[in-house]
Amino acid sequence: MLVAAPHQAPRKASRRRDRAGGEFGFLNKLLPTLTQGSGVIVGPGQDCALLRFGSQRLLVTVDALVEGIHFRSDWMSPYQLGRRSFLVNASDIAAMGGRPRWCVVSAGVPRGYPTRDLESIHAGIDAAAAECGAAIVGGNLAACPHLTLSVTLIAAAARRVVTRAGASPGDRIFVTGCVGDAALGVRNLKRGRRSGEVIERYREPAPRLAAGRALVESGVVSAMIDVSDGLIQDLGHICEASGVGAVVEAERLPLSGAYRRQSKSFDTALTGGEDYELLCAVPQRRMTLLPKLRRRLRCEMTLIGTVTKRKGLRVLGRDGIAIDLGAKGYDHFAKVGSR
Amino acid sequence: MLVAAPHQAPRKASRRRDRAGGEFGFLNKLLPTLTQGSGVIVGPGQDCALLRFGSQRLLVTVDALVEGIHFRSDWMSPYQLGRRSFLVNASDIAAMGGRPRWCVVSAGVPRGYPTRDLESIHAGIDAAAAECGAAIVGGNLAACPHLTLSVTLIAAAARRVVTRAGASPGDRIFVTGCVGDAALGVRNLKRGRRSGEVIERYREPAPRLAAGRALVESGVVSAMIDVSDGLIQDLGHICEASGVGAVVEAERLPLSGAYRRQSKSFDTALTGGEDYELLCAVPQRRMTLLPKLRRRLRCEMTLIGTVTKRKGLRVLGRDGIAIDLGAKGYDHFAKVGSR
Repeated sequence: MLVAAPHQAPRKASRRRDRAGGEFGFLNKLLPTLTQGSGVIVGPGQDCALLRFGSQRLLVTVDALVEGIHFRSDWMSPYQLGRRSFLVNASDIAAMGGRPRWCVVSAGVPRGYPTRDLESIHAGIDAAAAECGAAIVGGNLAACPHLTLSVTLIAAAARRVVTRAGASPGDRIFVTGCVGDAALGVRNLKRGRRSGEVIERYREPAPRLAAGRALVESGVVSAMIDVSDGLIQDLGHICEASGVGAVVEAERLPLSGAYRRQSKSFDTALTGGEDYELLCAVPQRRMTLLPKLRRRLRCEMTLIGTVTKRKGLRVLGRDGIAIDLGAKGYDHFAKVGSR
Repeated sequence: MLVAAPHQAPRKASRRRDRAGGEFGFLNKLLPTLTQGSGVIVGPGQDCALLRFGSQRLLVTVDALVEGIHFRSDWMSPYQLGRRSFLVNASDIAAMGGRPRWCVVSAGVPRGYPTRDLESIHAGIDAAAAECGAAIVGGNLAACPHLTLSVTLIAAAARRVVTRAGASPGDRIFVTGCVGDAALGVRNLKRGRRSGEVIERYREPAPRLAAGRALVESGVVSAMIDVSDGLIQDLGHICEASGVGAVVEAERLPLSGAYRRQSKSFDTALTGGEDYELLCAVPQRRMTLLPKLRRRLRCEMTLIGTVTKRKGLRVLGRDGIAIDLGAKGYDHFAKVGSR
């Protein structure tokens, strides 16, 4: 019934695991050793850092896209790649209800990379940033054997603080939009297709900034994360940070028409990753506030499960029968080379 | 007499130059196209961005170290590499007189990289940050074929604003500490040596944070930059941003005893890079303020030249005879593969 306790690697992944021991294993070991900085309200290990700066509070997050690991150059145009490198960061800001303000771009570019393409990347970052209310304020350009884009995004924080921790037994679990499309898109790209609805969903994440702000500012959610590594893995992060477990009812998962046409399984929606939707816990007493928020969310929000006192994640399929998942989601190190 | 106008590539480098057209050529083309963000006092193209956030002002900078481009793994320990990745950023903050507060680390790590070494890198970043009054508040860990460390540093800004622009004809040019040691260190490392004074200078940059703050807060300097790409190239950045030229008297260059023992030429000190000293312009009427600052600087500061109305850089050697420099400094793209 239970697949794997959160952060306990499934067998298949652990065989692939390299000496660095997996991203999350490493981080769990590293975080307690770091120096505690002044003005740090929320430090490493969350979607963003929350920092007190004078009378203001800011959010900071960083994410990287590496050619051959996170994308292939023939999967999208340089402009789309630029947009994507910004938008995946904006999704982390959305998960803490912030307003993007400024970003800096660290680009590692192979020798001989066309200037025009590099300009397109920056035009993509610039356009996506502007659409989210932010701007590029600096950067670094270095030679690098593989195209690498690392974007650091600074945002104005909401007045309330919502992190991955805070979910309690009985809280209902919701997810915005649809899940699984982007991972199906990656699968199609690997099979040589270059267009289609799910491929577009992969190419252009839609960070849920309006929904994130509404959910945080209204005080409705007790915990939130963005779904980047796969719904189950990211739900595992919430559970671990909150010291709880969860049950997900797979039949409730919001799946697009394209997903239903291309897949008869829930697996990709549960573990595929790259969705950049918001996954949150809502205490039952606050459920009545949700209808009033609907207009501010600017997207659908679907009830998919419940937080439990019992630790570990259970996924119930049709007729309430547990689904055994081979992998929980995307660990950058567990899957190196296979993706 | 004149070597090359600032940002006009010397012939040797331009032959090596790839299609991306060199870091600085690309940036000059890119910057005017970017969206102007709100709250941006100083935007892209300077050592740091200066941002207005409520009643506060912050500085942001990012820099990356890529294995095989900026360092080789056998040149320093993972701990030293971690320290270095923070300290080169702190040097950018020093150039604008800021106080480092927080950093985020984007690490790209090859499959099979030892966990212990990754921990040492983070311990090095953490220690260097703590020594500079800052802390790691977040990060991203991704698989990457080449070890890559990209650190974004956020700092509290000084009350005054000093950038690369602002130098006027007649201003005197000063540099802190000694120049050329780090580049000699790299040369020695390439020749297989693994210890010695100049190698240590390369391994452990000493960002001039106290000097930067004192020089900015006192209002003594009209323009400042940190010397990362080579004294001549970075002086070129000041000249270009300020619309002026400069004359440097090579005999005045502050050279260490180790440098004098290992090199009879000024070339490495002029163009070698990696010094992380501060290079600044001081209007003559403010020269009298310098002796009072001496204790606050915590390092030597040496007069090496004068800002001129005539554009371009001239370097005068012994007896005032011009030195012809084959290259002006370090352009990440001009030298890819050769470094």
